[in-house]
Amino acid sequence: MSSHLSQTHPSQWQGYTPLTTDAAWEDESYVDYYYDDPGDMPGTLTIDPEAPPPELVLIDYGSHHATRQPLTRPQECIPYMDSQSVSWLDVQGLGSEDILQELGQVFRLHPLTLEDIVNVPQRPKVEQYPDHILLIARMVTPREVGYGFDTEQVSFILGSSGYLLTVQEEGEHDTFASVRERIRVGKGMIRNYGADYLTYALLDTIVDGFFPVLELYGERLEELEDEVVINPTRTTLAEIHQLKRDLLSLRRLIWPLRDAVNVLIRDAGDFFGAEVRVYLRDCYDHTVQVMDIVETYREVASSLMDVYLSAIGNKMNEIMKFLTVISTIFIPLTFIAGVYGMNFAPDKSPWNMPELDWYWGYPFALGLMAVIAVALIIFFKRRGWFDNFSLVITDRVDGNPRL
Amino acid sequence: MSSHLSQTHPSQWQGYTPLTTDAAWEDESYVDYYYDDPGDMPGTLTIDPEAPPPELVLIDYGSHHATRQPLTRPQECIPYMDSQSVSWLDVQGLGSEDILQELGQVFRLHPLTLEDIVNVPQRPKVEQYPDHILLIARMVTPREVGYGFDTEQVSFILGSSGYLLTVQEEGEHDTFASVRERIRVGKGMIRNYGADYLTYALLDTIVDGFFPVLELYGERLEELEDEVVINPTRTTLAEIHQLKRDLLSLRRLIWPLRDAVNVLIRDAGDFFGAEVRVYLRDCYDHTVQVMDIVETYREVASSLMDVYLSAIGNKMNEIMKFLTVISTIFIPLTFIAGVYGMNFAPDKSPWNMPELDWYWGYPFALGLMAVIAVALIIFFKRRGWFDNFSLVITDRVDGNPRL
Amino acid sequence: MSSHLSQTHPSQWQGYTPLTTDAAWEDESYVDYYYDDPGDMPGTLTIDPEAPPPELVLIDYGSHHATRQPLTRPQECIPYMDSQSVSWLDVQGLGSEDILQELGQVFRLHPLTLEDIVNVPQRPKVEQYPDHILLIARMVTPREVGYGFDTEQVSFILGSSGYLLTVQEEGEHDTFASVRERIRVGKGMIRNYGADYLTYALLDTIVDGFFPVLELYGERLEELEDEVVINPTRTTLAEIHQLKRDLLSLRRLIWPLRDAVNVLIRDAGDFFGAEVRVYLRDCYDHTVQVMDIVETYREVASSLMDVYLSAIGNKMNEIMKFLTVISTIFIPLTFIAGVYGMNFAPDKSPWNMPELDWYWGYPFALGLMAVIAVALIIFFKRRGWFDNFSLVITDRVDGNPRL
Amino acid sequence: MSSHLSQTHPSQWQGYTPLTTDAAWEDESYVDYYYDDPGDMPGTLTIDPEAPPPELVLIDYGSHHATRQPLTRPQECIPYMDSQSVSWLDVQGLGSEDILQELGQVFRLHPLTLEDIVNVPQRPKVEQYPDHILLIARMVTPREVGYGFDTEQVSFILGSSGYLLTVQEEGEHDTFASVRERIRVGKGMIRNYGADYLTYALLDTIVDGFFPVLELYGERLEELEDEVVINPTRTTLAEIHQLKRDLLSLRRLIWPLRDAVNVLIRDAGDFFGAEVRVYLRDCYDHTVQVMDIVETYREVASSLMDVYLSAIGNKMNEIMKFLTVISTIFIPLTFIAGVYGMNFAPDKSPWNMPELDWYWGYPFALGLMAVIAVALIIFFKRRGWFDNFSLVITDRVDGNPRL
Amino acid sequence: MSSHLSQTHPSQWQGYTPLTTDAAWEDESYVDYYYDDPGDMPGTLTIDPEAPPPELVLIDYGSHHATRQPLTRPQECIPYMDSQSVSWLDVQGLGSEDILQELGQVFRLHPLTLEDIVNVPQRPKVEQYPDHILLIARMVTPREVGYGFDTEQVSFILGSSGYLLTVQEEGEHDTFASVRERIRVGKGMIRNYGADYLTYALLDTIVDGFFPVLELYGERLEELEDEVVINPTRTTLAEIHQLKRDLLSLRRLIWPLRDAVNVLIRDAGDFFGAEVRVYLRDCYDHTVQVMDIVETYREVASSLMDVYLSAIGNKMNEIMKFLTVISTIFIPLTFIAGVYGMNFAPDKSPWNMPELDWYWGYPFALGLMAVIAVALIIFFKRRGWFDNFSLVITDRVDGNPRL
Ligand SMILES: [Mg+2]
Ligand SMILES: [Mg+2]
Ligand SMILES: [Mg+2]
Ligand SMILES: [Mg+2]
Ligand SMILES: [Mg+2]
Ligand SMILES: [Mg+2]
Ligand SMILES: [Mg+2]
Ligand SMILES: [Mg+2]
Ligand SMILES: [Mg+2]
Ligand SMILES: [Mg+2]
Ligand SMILES: [Mg+2]
Ligand SMILES: [Mg+2]
Ligand SMILES: [Mg+2]
Ligand SMILES: [Mg+2]
Ligand SMILES: [Mg+2]
Ligand SMILES: [Mg+2]
Ligand SMILES: [Mg+2]
Ligand SMILES: [Mg+2]
Ligand SMILES: [Mg+2]
Ligand SMILES: [Mg+2]
Ligand SMILES: [Mg+2]
Ligand SMILES: [Mg+2]
Ligand SMILES: [Mg+2]
Ligand SMILES: [Mg+2]
Ligand SMILES: [Mg+2]
Ligand SMILES: [Mg+2]
Ligand SMILES: [Mg+2]
Ligand SMILES: [Mg+2]
Ligand SMILES: [Mg+2]
Ligand SMILES: [Mg+2]
Ligand SMILES: [Mg+2]
Repeated sequence: MSSHLSQTHPSQWQGYTPLTTDAAWEDESYVDYYYDDPGDMPGTLTIDPEAPPPELVLIDYGSHHATRQPLTRPQECIPYMDSQSVSWLDVQGLGSEDILQELGQVFRLHPLTLEDIVNVPQRPKVEQYPDHILLIARMVTPREVGYGFDTEQVSFILGSSGYLLTVQEEGEHDTFASVRERIRVGKGMIRNYGADYLTYALLDTIVDGFFPVLELYGERLEELEDEVVINPTRTTLAEIHQLKRDLLSLRRLIWPLRDAVNVLIRDAGDFFGAEVRVYLRDCYDHTVQVMDIVETYREVASSLMDVYLSAIGNKMNEIMKFLTVISTIFIPLTFIAGVYGMNFAPDKSPWNMPELDWYWGYPFALGLMAVIAVALIIFFKRRGWFDNFSLVITDRVDGNPRL
Repeated sequence: MSSHLSQTHPSQWQGYTPLTTDAAWEDESYVDYYYDDPGDMPGTLTIDPEAPPPELVLIDYGSHHATRQPLTRPQECIPYMDSQSVSWLDVQGLGSEDILQELGQVFRLHPLTLEDIVNVPQRPKVEQYPDHILLIARMVTPREVGYGFDTEQVSFILGSSGYLLTVQEEGEHDTFASVRERIRVGKGMIRNYGADYLTYALLDTIVDGFFPVLELYGERLEELEDEVVINPTRTTLAEIHQLKRDLLSLRRLIWPLRDAVNVLIRDAGDFFGAEVRVYLRDCYDHTVQVMDIVETYREVASSLMDVYLSAIGNKMNEIMKFLTVISTIFIPLTFIAGVYGMNFAPDKSPWNMPELDWYWGYPFALGLMAVIAVALIIFFKRRGWFDNFSLVITDRVDGNPRL
Repeated sequence: MSSHLSQTHPSQWQGYTPLTTDAAWEDESYVDYYYDDPGDMPGTLTIDPEAPPPELVLIDYGSHHATRQPLTRPQECIPYMDSQSVSWLDVQGLGSEDILQELGQVFRLHPLTLEDIVNVPQRPKVEQYPDHILLIARMVTPREVGYGFDTEQVSFILGSSGYLLTVQEEGEHDTFASVRERIRVGKGMIRNYGADYLTYALLDTIVDGFFPVLELYGERLEELEDEVVINPTRTTLAEIHQLKRDLLSLRRLIWPLRDAVNVLIRDAGDFFGAEVRVYLRDCYDHTVQVMDIVETYREVASSLMDVYLSAIGNKMNEIMKFLTVISTIFIPLTFIAGVYGMNFAPDKSPWNMPELDWYWGYPFALGLMAVIAVALIIFFKRRGWFDNFSLVITDRVDGNPRL
Repeated sequence: MSSHLSQTHPSQWQGYTPLTTDAAWEDESYVDYYYDDPGDMPGTLTIDPEAPPPELVLIDYGSHHATRQPLTRPQECIPYMDSQSVSWLDVQGLGSEDILQELGQVFRLHPLTLEDIVNVPQRPKVEQYPDHILLIARMVTPREVGYGFDTEQVSFILGSSGYLLTVQEEGEHDTFASVRERIRVGKGMIRNYGADYLTYALLDTIVDGFFPVLELYGERLEELEDEVVINPTRTTLAEIHQLKRDLLSLRRLIWPLRDAVNVLIRDAGDFFGAEVRVYLRDCYDHTVQVMDIVETYREVASSLMDVYLSAIGNKMNEIMKFLTVISTIFIPLTFIAGVYGMNFAPDKSPWNMPELDWYWGYPFALGLMAVIAVALIIFFKRRGWFDNFSLVITDRVDGNPRL
Repeated sequence: MSSHLSQTHPSQWQGYTPLTTDAAWEDESYVDYYYDDPGDMPGTLTIDPEAPPPELVLIDYGSHHATRQPLTRPQECIPYMDSQSVSWLDVQGLGSEDILQELGQVFRLHPLTLEDIVNVPQRPKVEQYPDHILLIARMVTPREVGYGFDTEQVSFILGSSGYLLTVQEEGEHDTFASVRERIRVGKGMIRNYGADYLTYALLDTIVDGFFPVLELYGERLEELEDEVVINPTRTTLAEIHQLKRDLLSLRRLIWPLRDAVNVLIRDAGDFFGAEVRVYLRDCYDHTVQVMDIVETYREVASSLMDVYLSAIGNKMNEIMKFLTVISTIFIPLTFIAGVYGMNFAPDKSPWNMPELDWYWGYPFALGLMAVIAVALIIFFKRRGWFDNFSLVITDRVDGNPRL
């Protein structure tokens, strides 16, 4: 499973150069919740001018039938809502205030509910109303180019009369295709259950969608682990920090979703049957497993930051040893050369540098130097100082300079 | 939204020089709660001599009318308090003990409540009394010049007979303008609801007011992220620390406010109708989102401190490498020059420095030096030591010296 | 308020030299709870031979009277205990087992309660008995000379029949003076309330007493913040550590006191009337604010430790740069001088150091050196290496050597 | 006990070379939960093509008999399931969808339960159904070659009619042998109790199996402790990090298992008799002890990372001292030699280097140098700088180079 | 009290040399819980061959009598167990399976209870059975030679019919002597209370026994604090780490004991009378105080690790400054000497080193050097670089080399 995934997107990490341009950093805000201008009236809808216009698709099904039809306006949905069959209206795109307001009227949504659906992104949550329940979730998908993941808010309105309204930010990045196919061909039990099971089935694809994203981060973390010990570079540091940031974001997505699923299991007995609650528990298990993995990664990444700091210190020790070895060997030699470069007059006294007039004087001096150099090299060799130079010497790994 | 904001206050970060003067640091105390002198009697009001004198404005409205009138004394308010219409007395300024004491009598406030309103700042909280409920909140606004945010205590007294008293520290920095306007023109549902909805509407502007402040900190954090990797300076460190401090302050403001809103939703059924509690839940969502963002920023800022420490180590390695390269190349050359500077007498022995008398002696010595230098340069080049010098060499970024 | 305080004790920080003698460290034990020798019988009183002898003062008051009289023995108190008026016996000093045992008999104290009162210090707590309630608190006062704060245990025994016994370690450092004065002159409501209000009034002075201590630590923290960035010295480090230690001690004092006050509000309905519980809530608010401040200071102090570590690294980079600049400039010059100090015989060959015989030889050599030196200086200048020397150069700040 | 274990696997740590190949790192994924492809239908079984085919063994016993027989298909089990005797079907291997589906039908398992059993690994948990209870546990065994531990999921289905189904991933690494033997020979009380006791007995071997694994990590931790202070190497760092990672994994295994055992004790009264719950409490104690040890190891490992960082700094100080001593001694000597190498003409002036013509000039110069060298050596000796060189000098420990 | 203790064991810290031999580290396992071999039958007793044989002493007492008699077999105890008087059987030593099994039969202990008593050490806990209650505690005593503390498990079986069985690992290190004496002479109330009070009295000595151990660690911590700032050595680091490890162990002992005492107070009403529960609350207070102190020490020790790291950095800065000062002063001087050592022929040109022929040439050169040296010394002096050398210069403190 994971090997399949990692082979599908090998390019995701390759071209990643977070430091060359600011662009990669720029387009992500930490404030990834929508917020009103202070003073905005509650219920104000904010339509992003670049948001795609909503596309409405109604899927209506029961044990023996399944139909799919695009709608142009929400009100076309009304006849289906109270029918016996399960009616699922999927709205993709938030680009028309007109249609969204009509949606609110058709589904009798509280102005604040409509605001939560439209003014994305919101924090995942559950909100109960007499005749419907609101679930806000955030879908994650691995980014196709570059690094990281994309998120898209999906809002669920499950009506007690057996309809489901889902609202997505846009048409792409949809993990619901397999559910639509199961409805179409009647595979599995989905056509025998109600809108509550449909809600579960869609939510399950959203939760399962966190795992491939985490798998990519897990692989990245293992690469960084090797990098930090074998070949730590300047960008390693920035990438560990970026990884920690992304994991914080993932945690912010999954933590409230886990709570929301728990609320569905415990407090939403009017909307979810006992049989479906068993399935929701499975979904809850998966949210807990996602949390588990995110927390583990965060701890490993923190530890990695400490390893990096130590690796820098180790590198510094190597450099210092190198300088010390070179200096220590040549300093005495240069001193000896300096001594024999002194200008004491040998003719004034037999004590004045008699070596200069010896027959073997120069070879003697050179030999003295050689002896000192060899002795020092043996000294350092015995202490093991040269062993570490393997690292100084292999300072370029795979063609890249080391730290 | 965020782009709008960041363009409005571009100067906020530009002129920020936290280290040049102590002034910026001086005027913020960590003890940002008011406290009595030990031994002060409970209920003692402390009037800051520089506090502006209170201005009193009464807004009275119902479905079909809305009037606004400045008052000179609190007791003028009495006729309105028990009327059917909603009466909102807004007091701005804490500069008159006389007026504040009268306020306490008119609204039958407990001496400790009056103390909490007057002796600002207090920790946000809710306190219930038989006929009114006290909510203390802290409004934040981005500082117009310089760095950071200003806070101002706003106290709400919501009476069970349908009046609202709000007390602000001063007249400026008011986020309530849009609510006044909605009352005046009857926009939205505000005129159809009671004083509980008015309380919500005002509180909502306060909570929404945290987001623009956070957005500024988010932008600052992203700038610091780039700075710490690309161009860490000495002030970067102080600014990360300052950021952490400010985030701690923000957390101290929003955490108890979140609890207070929760108390309003759960335990204040006598004062807030079911319909308004739905709105309060929305407000609660926003306090949770603010908390979420503050905690995320705090974790990123802590990680940034670690990145900074590593960046210093990286820089040190570069400097050491530079020194080592220069030293290692010249030390052997200088040694050779020293050798040929020795004064062994060539005329005493054919072994005494015969090179000195060679025809090509000097070029040979220079050549030997050149060979050694080139060999060492190639050695370092192959190890990749020069690649990192790009950083030593580009030590001045955008005209500023690097770390 | 804070300016007043900081002006009162300006000398507190000035003479602080924690490293010169061990004395300052010596007299503070981390085990600041009293403990029995293992095997001691429960209820064993341990009288410190240096403890001052107890002084007993009885204050008896009601709406219309207030009397104060020193007692010599606890039993003189008996007639007052069951009277209608409020009777407050204040015992200052723990130096007489005789008197303390009599106190236990008069007030029918459990041997363990008496032990808690006498064997100081204990952890703050509340303990309920059928006819009285025990509250143990710790009073803090800023140390008048030197650094830090002093603590003194104050035990409260509030009897259901309307008396209050307080036991203090010693007579000095009493924050109760203002309460005695309010009783004497009948200021405020104190004479109209019972012993429960008196308990609150005294406890309030204790809680309010934490703020001036915290204010001093806040100021110290701000000084250390400036110091750590502008002028970190060796003692800065020890002082941050000491600050963290002291804040830990403060936290240990206020945390259980907060819980104790909460117990009084929630579970001690037999001893505290509803009206007084409103006042206790105010007191509880203040304990929460103290906690808030302590926790904030602790986080800032931890961050400061990290800043200090980075500041050391920055300093090291500066020193290394200085050494590198000096070395790098002189190494090539010295090499050139060495070359022209070689003794190749110019008369043996035209290739042997012909420069030595040039007319402009020496000026040429000096000029070459000058060119190299200037080029290197420009190189370093352009890289901005000299800009940071401002810090190396201003290494003495305000007459003190820097880090 | 522990000595026995540590002697059994002495080779486990010896050959450990985590850095030489990536292989050791590669085969462990952090995402160690199974997950569906987003969109997979709930209840989809994923059969690993390399999984061994299931082997089925039925053990049926009562007070007076115990039989063991291999089965070929799950349905052969049906006659035993509702019998009075205890029937334990142990399935080892997940390599046949056919058999596993039949297992689901025979034991009437919910599709999601079957999925949890087959799609391994899952997080430990308990799930109750009307007629059976599901317990998922993870068995750990010390890895026989190399470093670390292996895990294998064991699923328990305890039926209310007195049967137990266990499903293991594979046949090896089974800690159940002693239980089978106790059933066979009727040792202890096992044959007198029901399937609930059998479940406990098997679970107990799983929990007890964590201790030998922890013992190995404890020994490794102690080795690393010595290593980090006495002889820290580059691999020490990677191993501490790896240890922390492994402890995180162990924590993820034991934490939810502890919760699951607690659920069995508290909420599973229909499946576990009061007598057996006493035994489960013992098992719960052991899970708490495992947690305790894991958390302690994690804290010690974190502290060790800090110790390592300091050890690097200490080493750097030693290297710097060595370089400083060598440089400081020779720099003045070389300077003196340089002075006497100057070419001032003694014949032009009596002030021009008269030493050069002295009778004792050269010995004087050498003596001067010797005096300076000895003085400096004494200076450094007195300061204790040479004492630390014991560490620089013994830089190779047990034949390995030091840090 | 603390001064008394610290004087009693002054030698405890003196001879401590944790790094010289591995022995000190070796004999402490982190896995300090007993664990079964996986597959061991529940209730298996593991008798350590070196465990001392059990000694049984029965103390029987009431208001008017107290007898003490050694027993040879547990069954001799039976007549006393149901008598009116309080019967305390104290078993010291776990070296005989025979006697321990008989103990289980006499006191009707569950096999798992007997296992917990015998297979030491276990985690402190309380376990209730119909006719007795089990309390497991761990007694700590300061180690008499060397460093640290010893622990010994003490198990309490309090029977509802008024007997107490205590089982200790061995006869030494008993804190119960004072209780035996109080029983013998009838001191205090102990003879008037039942076996529940006796249980309290013994438990109280165990809890009080933590304080002297903590006091020793507190003193060690203060010594390390001074050491880390004034004279940090290589062993300081190892000792801080060891201290943290020991504190972790202490925390593991006291934390569950606190919970166990709390269970006794809240849930064990059948075994402990209301009067004795008052005493248990006092004991609970002390466990909380022990926790408090342990947690404080842990935080201080962690902070100390950070201080140590900074101290290393400070030391490095000093060494670098020393090297920089020496290098910077001599480098220009050596350069000048080199210049005047060049061999430009003065006779070829008046520009060729005319200084060499000057009358004051040599003194001029020496003077130039002196001026440069003095200027540089003043430069460094003014910057304060020499002030810090106090630390380099006093590098040996109390005869020991510094870091
Ligand atoms: Mg993001
Ligand atoms: Mg909003
Ligand atoms: Mg799923
Ligand atoms: Mg890996
Ligand atoms: Mg599942
Ligand atoms: Mg860290
Ligand atoms: Mg502030
Ligand atoms: Mg106050
Ligand atoms: Mg809002
Ligand atoms: Mg960014
Ligand atoms: Mg702050
Ligand atoms: Mg909303
Ligand atoms: Mg940190
Ligand atoms: Mg101390
Ligand atoms: Mg203290
Ligand atoms: Mg005590
Ligand atoms: Mg107060
Ligand atoms: Mg400041
Ligand atoms: Mg107040
Ligand atoms: Mg830290
Ligand atoms: Mg793993
Ligand atoms: Mg799945
Ligand atoms: Mg077990
Ligand atoms: Mg060890
Ligand atoms: Mg046990
Ligand atoms: Mg740390
Ligand atoms: Mg131990
Ligand atoms: Mg066991
Ligand atoms: Mg005690
Ligand atoms: Mg230990
Ligand atoms: Mg006590």
